[in-house]
Amino acid sequence: MKLLVVGSVALDSIHTPFGDVTDALGGSAVYFSTAASLLTQVRVVGVVGDDYPMAELKKLEGRGVDLSGVEQARGESFRWKGKYSFDLSSRETLETRLGVFADFKPKLPAGYGDTPYVLLGNIHPDLQLSVLDQMKGPRMVACDTMNYWIDSAKDRLMEVLKRVNLLIINDEEIRQLSGDWNVHRAARWVLGQGPQRVVVKRGEHGALLVEKDRSFFCPAYPLEEVFDPTGAGDAFAGGFLGYIARSSDTSNAGLRRAMVYGAAMGSFAVSQFGVGGFEGVTPAVLQERVGRFKDLTHFDMAEAVA
Amino acid sequence: MKLLVVGSVALDSIHTPFGDVTDALGGSAVYFSTAASLLTQVRVVGVVGDDYPMAELKKLEGRGVDLSGVEQARGESFRWKGKYSFDLSSRETLETRLGVFADFKPKLPAGYGDTPYVLLGNIHPDLQLSVLDQMKGPRMVACDTMNYWIDSAKDRLMEVLKRVNLLIINDEEIRQLSGDWNVHRAARWVLGQGPQRVVVKRGEHGALLVEKDRSFFCPAYPLEEVFDPTGAGDAFAGGFLGYIARSSDTSNAGLRRAMVYGAAMGSFAVSQFGVGGFEGVTPAVLQERVGRFKDLTHFDMAEAVA
Repeated sequence: MKLLVVGSVALDSIHTPFGDVTDALGGSAVYFSTAASLLTQVRVVGVVGDDYPMAELKKLEGRGVDLSGVEQARGESFRWKGKYSFDLSSRETLETRLGVFADFKPKLPAGYGDTPYVLLGNIHPDLQLSVLDQMKGPRMVACDTMNYWIDSAKDRLMEVLKRVNLLIINDEEIRQLSGDWNVHRAARWVLGQGPQRVVVKRGEHGALLVEKDRSFFCPAYPLEEVFDPTGAGDAFAGGFLGYIARSSDTSNAGLRRAMVYGAAMGSFAVSQFGVGGFEGVTPAVLQERVGRFKDLTHFDMAEAVA
Repeated sequence: MKLLVVGSVALDSIHTPFGDVTDALGGSAVYFSTAASLLTQVRVVGVVGDDYPMAELKKLEGRGVDLSGVEQARGESFRWKGKYSFDLSSRETLETRLGVFADFKPKLPAGYGDTPYVLLGNIHPDLQLSVLDQMKGPRMVACDTMNYWIDSAKDRLMEVLKRVNLLIINDEEIRQLSGDWNVHRAARWVLGQGPQRVVVKRGEHGALLVEKDRSFFCPAYPLEEVFDPTGAGDAFAGGFLGYIARSSDTSNAGLRRAMVYGAAMGSFAVSQFGVGGFEGVTPAVLQERVGRFKDLTHFDMAEAVA
């Protein structure tokens, strides 16, 4: 079934120890839809400036992504410039120019309101709420956020949480949001604010799915070469929600599988600059990667010691 | 089958955000044998001063631990004093007094040379080698080490690696040892130096088992209350090697199970000060905790997407 993402479409300039790239396609909605399009039909709502390389963006249409919700406004596109440390463990934002993204008001094209699965990317909580107001009974809504909104618009963010089924967030963000450094306790706190499920992304370590009475942990794929971590979390979300939309399975078993698809997508994202890591990733390549997670995580218990 | 550990028997003074403790039983061999004794018979080789609370230590005998290799020397016991950050994510060593441990020369009691399973705790590599010289064809020898020996005695440590089957080490240490920040590549490098297996302990995230063609990851148990991380890595090693010694199963399937026993022991260790977390941990309690790891990590793959 179809999957809607509302988020940033940007141009990223990235410095890593392995090289540099300038004004490459980026933004959460681009990473998300590149990954999710391997699994289901994706609709993107976003905004770009009149300087955006539309021919590059339109390559997503070749992946079945519907870009009719991407508005092109007069002005400069959203640009982000960052630099990673030698071991990719931390990054510094060198420059953020919001451009036309600063005045983004998501307007859903006709028919988009019926999309059954939705990711509210990390835009202002008021904009997330305005998207929710335009939806007609979606089956599952997930939302992301970031430190900036937790700092500046927490009360509005709490309103969003009341109206979504799932929060997908990284470990630093959930600590900040909950005021609790223990991520398991923090996730439990989030479950009391509205969402029935929380996914905590833990970077190179993996990701955690927390529900009322159960948790599931999926490690990151063990990569000996990591090139550019940008977008890994968005690609994870794309794989996760892409699989849910494809299968229409929101059971615990379905979400566990979706976590593994998310982790596989994250591993592709970090293997090249920008979305380059998805070049050559066919459904067969994806399936092969997903299959490897079983060997990475499964064990069989022999006789008990008690 | 029997399991020998050679390592430190110390008195720890620990400050955490939740309280303080002074001169509590500690040291790698104490944590290790407390955990491993739930699974198999453990022999400890170490040294304490004449100020050591021997009645406390001898409680280990009630767990079936053989302490005849613990020498009591004239002088002060090894003392460590540390302080954890508010979120337990980092710790500062406030004081280390080696005392009689500075002159420790491991002497194996008669019959100990035949012990089939061995952990060489993080003592000077020359002492690890001297223990190896006293062993008669053990089935499996694992070794630990620490940043201090990597800095000061790396060439001797490399001699140890040539003679052991398994290295068990934390992520910071393996990065330092290999000079490579990528832990998967670092583990691969270690496999070229002697050991057939490497276990990388990653604290609150879990632990990774690396063999030539496969990796297995076991997450840490999701605890909402963590009290004192001291000794968690040693308790992990005790559960891991304790299970291997108990089962005499050094196959990949056996080592995977052993990793889960290790992770379960780590979760008990952090739940109270010192070895207090093991109070009340019966084989049945251990088995229940181990069983929960399956729900935490397993998924079943439905139809393929390709």
